[in-house]
Amino acid sequence: MATGRFITLEGGEGVGKTTQLAALAEALRARGKTVVTTREPGGSEGAEAIRGLLLEGGEERWSAPAEALLFAAARTDHVDKVVRPALALGHWVLCDRFLDSSLAYQGGAGGLGIEEVRAINLFGIADCLPDRTLLLVHSHGAERALHRDGGASDRIGGRPASYHRAVEDAFRSIAASEPDRVRLIDASGSPAEVTDRLLAALEDLA
Amino acid sequence: MATGRFITLEGGEGVGKTTQLAALAEALRARGKTVVTTREPGGSEGAEAIRGLLLEGGEERWSAPAEALLFAAARTDHVDKVVRPALALGHWVLCDRFLDSSLAYQGGAGGLGIEEVRAINLFGIADCLPDRTLLLVHSHGAERALHRDGGASDRIGGRPASYHRAVEDAFRSIAASEPDRVRLIDASGSPAEVTDRLLAALEDLA
Ligand SMILES: Nc1ncnc2c1ncn2[C@@H]1O[C@H](COP(=O)(O)OP(=O)(O)OP(=O)(O)O)[C@@H](O)[C@H]1O
Ligand SMILES: Nc1ncnc2c1ncn2[C@@H]1O[C@H](COP(=O)(O)OP(=O)(O)OP(=O)(O)O)[C@@H](O)[C@H]1O
Ligand SMILES: [Mg+2]
Ligand SMILES: [Mg+2]
Repeated sequence: MATGRFITLEGGEGVGKTTQLAALAEALRARGKTVVTTREPGGSEGAEAIRGLLLEGGEERWSAPAEALLFAAARTDHVDKVVRPALALGHWVLCDRFLDSSLAYQGGAGGLGIEEVRAINLFGIADCLPDRTLLLVHSHGAERALHRDGGASDRIGGRPASYHRAVEDAFRSIAASEPDRVRLIDASGSPAEVTDRLLAALEDLA
Repeated sequence: MATGRFITLEGGEGVGKTTQLAALAEALRARGKTVVTTREPGGSEGAEAIRGLLLEGGEERWSAPAEALLFAAARTDHVDKVVRPALALGHWVLCDRFLDSSLAYQGGAGGLGIEEVRAINLFGIADCLPDRTLLLVHSHGAERALHRDGGASDRIGGRPASYHRAVEDAFRSIAASEPDRVRLIDASGSPAEVTDRLLAALEDLA
């Protein structure tokens, strides 16, 4: 049976994760892989139910630690019900945001601590960690994010620029500390150029 | 302003926690304390919503780690919204089950590890720990639990006797490791006799 691979796409708002996930899935399918695409938060029935609780009410509805525990519980269910079973079948699993988003947003920018947030997540997901994480970054600041179409940001997307700079800093520090797992990918240029960079960063896993 | 005290009642199924919580609250009110009674799992709006998710579906609905994270998230909300505010007002808070139930049921009997389950809970509740925990135990096995009226046990109450013995062992080992916080209370005899023992174990806090 083929060996399953767990690949995650990470990066700030509007950097192109969702666009690239679809393109990458197509490119890998064209190379003969069976590809499952999924996303967080959510991705399984239980995780979507938890996501529903997280979206109810205003900023005061949940404290930061309560929210982080709910995200970790949702991720655990997603891993249990979707990611692990697909990997066990030898599929490639591509996930739009995963653990590193919690580390960067809640651990880094949110002030809970990257290692503290990692610990509660590892309690749930144990050894189900990405074989490779593709971190999309803009070399010259997040211009596209600032000018993107599509109107209303959600509760997190709408936070101030200083918050999003802290997210980016946290992503880069995670990448620096795990260079084998996390690859920085330049998100500038056309979508096809970015997809080529992503594929190159997976070459050794094929 | 009066100093708030956080008191938790713990013990296995049917040992008398709920009965004693009510009696203890009355006795403390008669001594002039303002007493807030609460219980877990639940006790706040967010925690009750999480409890709803936990009760949906069968044993396979959530893995053991996902369930433990959801309990920790519920406890964090309960502490944030109910326990801390009452303590800040100088009230006595009496809680029917708290952290030690997660440690004994999920950490000990459930095999997730007492220290691992403690860590994810401390992430959420930080320094909001009981000033005293009253652990109700039967000196000669849990006879009352086995013969109690009232029919159907819930998902956890209905587990086999070996599970409940492991819970009891875990409770006793927690008590042994924190003798200042946790007091073993003999649950045999009349309800009034047990209440007198509980009051005696709070004497130094009054
Ligand atoms: N390489 C590219 N060049 C130009 N525009 C792009 C490129 N990649 C994506 N876009 C556009 O930028 C916007 C954001 O892309 P996308 O939604 O894929 O980002 P995202 O990282 O998934 O965002 P979010 O974090 O908000 O989900 C979209 O309008 C998309 O069409
Ligand atoms: N000291 C006592 N003597 C005799 N019966 C008692 C005594 N204390 C409680 N009971 C009875 O034992 C049963 C269990 O008591 P209770 O519901 O208070 O236990 P509990 O620890 O809260 O149980 P659970 O874990 O299921 O919530 C009830 O029927 C109660 O009336
Ligand atoms: Mg997206
Ligand atoms: Mg009870």
